[in-house]
Amino acid sequence: MLPTILDAATLRAAYASGALDPVAVAGIVAERMATSADPAIFITMVCRDDLVAAARDLMERHPVPNSLPLWGLPFAVKDNIDVAGLPTTAACPAFAYTPEADAVVVARLKAAGAFVTGKTNLDQFATGLNGTRSPYGAPRSVFSAEHVSGGSSSGSAVAVAAGLVCFSLGTDTAGSGRVPAAFNNIVGIKPTPGALSTTGLVPACRSLDCITVFSATVGDGIAVRRVAEGFDPADPYSRMAVPLALPATRLRFGVLAPDEREFYGDAGTEALYDAAIARLEGLGGVAVPFDYAPFREIAALLYDGPWVAERLAAIETFHADHAAAMDPSVRAIAESARGYSAVDAFRGRYAFEACKRRTDMILGELDILLLPTSPTTYSVAEMQAEPVLRNSHFGRYTNFANLLGMAAIAVPAGFRQDGLPAGVMLVAPGFTDEALAPWADALHRALGGGMGLDRAAALPEASRVPAAESDAIPLVVVGAHLTGLALNHQLQDLGARFLRATRTAADYRLFALPGTVPAKPGLVREPGHAGPGLEVEVWSLDPASFGRFAAAIPAPLGIGKITLADGETASGFLCEAHAVAGAPEITHHGGWRAYLAANQP
Amino acid sequence: MLPTILDAATLRAAYASGALDPVAVAGIVAERMATSADPAIFITMVCRDDLVAAARDLMERHPVPNSLPLWGLPFAVKDNIDVAGLPTTAACPAFAYTPEADAVVVARLKAAGAFVTGKTNLDQFATGLNGTRSPYGAPRSVFSAEHVSGGSSSGSAVAVAAGLVCFSLGTDTAGSGRVPAAFNNIVGIKPTPGALSTTGLVPACRSLDCITVFSATVGDGIAVRRVAEGFDPADPYSRMAVPLALPATRLRFGVLAPDEREFYGDAGTEALYDAAIARLEGLGGVAVPFDYAPFREIAALLYDGPWVAERLAAIETFHADHAAAMDPSVRAIAESARGYSAVDAFRGRYAFEACKRRTDMILGELDILLLPTSPTTYSVAEMQAEPVLRNSHFGRYTNFANLLGMAAIAVPAGFRQDGLPAGVMLVAPGFTDEALAPWADALHRALGGGMGLDRAAALPEASRVPAAESDAIPLVVVGAHLTGLALNHQLQDLGARFLRATRTAADYRLFALPGTVPAKPGLVREPGHAGPGLEVEVWSLDPASFGRFAAAIPAPLGIGKITLADGETASGFLCEAHAVAGAPEITHHGGWRAYLAANQP
Repeated sequence: MLPTILDAATLRAAYASGALDPVAVAGIVAERMATSADPAIFITMVCRDDLVAAARDLMERHPVPNSLPLWGLPFAVKDNIDVAGLPTTAACPAFAYTPEADAVVVARLKAAGAFVTGKTNLDQFATGLNGTRSPYGAPRSVFSAEHVSGGSSSGSAVAVAAGLVCFSLGTDTAGSGRVPAAFNNIVGIKPTPGALSTTGLVPACRSLDCITVFSATVGDGIAVRRVAEGFDPADPYSRMAVPLALPATRLRFGVLAPDEREFYGDAGTEALYDAAIARLEGLGGVAVPFDYAPFREIAALLYDGPWVAERLAAIETFHADHAAAMDPSVRAIAESARGYSAVDAFRGRYAFEACKRRTDMILGELDILLLPTSPTTYSVAEMQAEPVLRNSHFGRYTNFANLLGMAAIAVPAGFRQDGLPAGVMLVAPGFTDEALAPWADALHRALGGGMGLDRAAALPEASRVPAAESDAIPLVVVGAHLTGLALNHQLQDLGARFLRATRTAADYRLFALPGTVPAKPGLVREPGHAGPGLEVEVWSLDPASFGRFAAAIPAPLGIGKITLADGETASGFLCEAHAVAGAPEITHHGGWRAYLAANQP
Repeated sequence: MLPTILDAATLRAAYASGALDPVAVAGIVAERMATSADPAIFITMVCRDDLVAAARDLMERHPVPNSLPLWGLPFAVKDNIDVAGLPTTAACPAFAYTPEADAVVVARLKAAGAFVTGKTNLDQFATGLNGTRSPYGAPRSVFSAEHVSGGSSSGSAVAVAAGLVCFSLGTDTAGSGRVPAAFNNIVGIKPTPGALSTTGLVPACRSLDCITVFSATVGDGIAVRRVAEGFDPADPYSRMAVPLALPATRLRFGVLAPDEREFYGDAGTEALYDAAIARLEGLGGVAVPFDYAPFREIAALLYDGPWVAERLAAIETFHADHAAAMDPSVRAIAESARGYSAVDAFRGRYAFEACKRRTDMILGELDILLLPTSPTTYSVAEMQAEPVLRNSHFGRYTNFANLLGMAAIAVPAGFRQDGLPAGVMLVAPGFTDEALAPWADALHRALGGGMGLDRAAALPEASRVPAAESDAIPLVVVGAHLTGLALNHQLQDLGARFLRATRTAADYRLFALPGTVPAKPGLVREPGHAGPGLEVEVWSLDPASFGRFAAAIPAPLGIGKITLADGETASGFLCEAHAVAGAPEITHHGGWRAYLAANQP
């Protein structure tokens, strides 16, 4: 009746056709949760009756299928995020309380038509990246009963990958919203810190915590994030979004330089990373090796520096009374904060700022980073044998992102020969959340690795993320602004980007304007003229730069619309007709550059 | 020969006329320093021979008067900022070292033609706002040998106010670049944190420290700040400037609401604050009372919370070996950091972020704040009797600014009946440094309180700060975008402002373009044509809106340069010539509106 994976596009199509309704899905979800092969996914399940009642309530209040953005979509919530009436345990029974109010993010999702199926297991207090640090058991990767699920958002990731819910909420401080996505062949959306309210979240490191989304496709996850996000004045770390764009073509993506490649011997995951690089190049990206060292140094501050004090600050009262009730690894990490003074905390901040200067320089040359999500994975037994060291391996490429305020999307990268999956992350500056999505989705689709447990599933077309509408404005240049010529630096200074070299349509004529310094041509359209078409370049500028550039052009030149040889039209240099009267026509040269070459002294 | 106050405009005029040269000024400055009534201003003076040699060297390398931005201007440097070859003491003899390199800011000023006269006294390690915490003595206000100079940049402020130098460098963590300006009737420019490099500065609180400028006028100080500022990749707290504008009229300035007015019984200073409010209203500002409480709570974090750990972090090694060599108040403050853990430091950060949410909301409704610089002043004896409490009074309105990353300019506010001066500050969001200057200068000039020691001095016209040049781009519209016509809403939607209605020059012709919807005219220039000039309107758009607007114009229209009836030129609508061939000419109507009126059905 329903496929293995409950992605949003599939559910919406079934709702639209009348093949299913939310009450039926509630029943199916209840059945799947009850019969799940992995008993460690949920800490609290909503019972079948309550699920059905929630679905029925939705259908009464909003009877038209898909009339809300998340109409009838079942979701799971990591058990460090409040859902009214369900206990919040943070995977520590002694810590549990039952909130009266939903977390702001949960309330927004419910209001958009989604319904909660349960609270999912996690590494206690979201401290861990592996999923074994919980008294409620260790969820497993859906691909191996021996292997860790990843964490700390262990249950949330597995719930999506096993087809128990459409999407789920996780959290991410050091990588918890990304690592388990990699180990379960699903997508992890880690928004820019502050984009989603943390009101109603048990803090791990308050200054860094993000609520995240797990989903089968990037499109599903982005749709959820759009509903969940928004400024929350009650959350001091909430931020007004200021969306940043990314290039639609020729994306410069940073890749690990050879001496910063560390996969802890996992050649399979390394090969999958290389394959992802090749795929992104195939999609129009340009791979640029970069030095990961300063990012690694920032990452080290999170566990081996004073930032661990945030973890203690979050639970200090509880720890004072209930230390014995805590997971030993989690307790040891929190207690390590005792060794740090306020002076150490500021020293850590100074070290961070010094590293950030270096990462800023690197990021200034790149559009995004493409990194392995986790460099390897381990069995539960291996993890339990070395719980701190092996956990730290998982975070090698994730830890820095929130300290730098960056956005990230983790997507599947395929399967090792032993059948275990790996993932890659697209990481970019804060508030590129929207701009990252088309690239992440394209990379995921190019893989053909299915969704979650279902390696053969086709990604629904309906959830494809369209390429972003670029805010940038193309500009056709014909004279001194061509590459290598006298005024090209004006474009470079404004941060313009070269798009392509082409020709105008045939009905343009070019004249050498007398008395111009530097020498400039004038382009004039004459409908019906059958010329060779003139050599032009198309550059791209942001609107403000385009505006300043256009405003600075002296008469008789100006910016009109130019039709190109392929029929496209773009803004570009035209000349007032009176200025070419009597000027030598140079159309037959085919362009300004050719004219200059023919007229060199 | 020279007036009491060595402001830059006066020196420049004397240099330009040949009445003086830098060698002569060097001699005069040496004489004034040697005979100063206040022996506590300088910790190290440059000797007369070295001053003269520096001036002579400048004249040899750059013989043309005023050929560099700060040509021949003598300046003093607070003794926590490195000047190559002079000891840096931070007012702690046991701490002293002699740097080989200038601080980045000092090097920039020297390269611009200014020369250093000496290193000035300060509250030890820049910890204090009063000027008495130094083994080198306590400088006094130039208006009273009994009263404190203010600090911590005590000597730098007094040096300017006493006419010993043209300008000076101070620093400001909690108010040290502003309080002593108030007590000495001069200007204190506190740039946005990160705008000026701190490379070569002995830190007080590294995350907050700013280098500041004292000067006789706002214009002088801004000129120095422009030379001194600039991104420094070696300083992790250096920031790329992203200038923000402020309104040129109807500036909404926040003033203390009644229940947050605290002047510690100093009715004279309160009256001067009220007078400043009235003056700023007279200059076109709109006073808006606001709740200062969250700003005060942020201020409290600086001395009564974990931020004191930064002061200890800055000198921890020195303190470990030389605690006994420190000023007792300064030592006690640094040692209070011992009580704070890393957990406390993060808790302090959380408290800050919660306050900042409230201050952000308040600042969102205002353009700037107008605050008393210090609510009162004290005699040296009074200060020594209660050195911590009374010091804290001085910082009541200054402490928050750097924690919030704000820019501030402190200007004189006149004199109490006992002849002691007070000041007010204009405080605004980071990178409004330039935008604040015209308002601060106008407020200062409206006072008529002289400069420094010379209460009768007129502020030179040459140093007046002109109103900011707008970033907006004028656009000439001639057709459907005119007020009331079909496409005018496009301008309104982009936030365009109407500037004026006028006509083009006589050599433009107007045509009714056939087949356009809505109907549009085409404007074409024909040199020599003697027409009536066409009715146009000039609107103003920000660069991005102008860019988007220009990019959206369909062929055959475009944006070129239009010459107006008064001879000015601006960007505006032109039409490709081919499109008007055969179109009805309507030039004789004098404009599109008149044509439409004459052709109504």
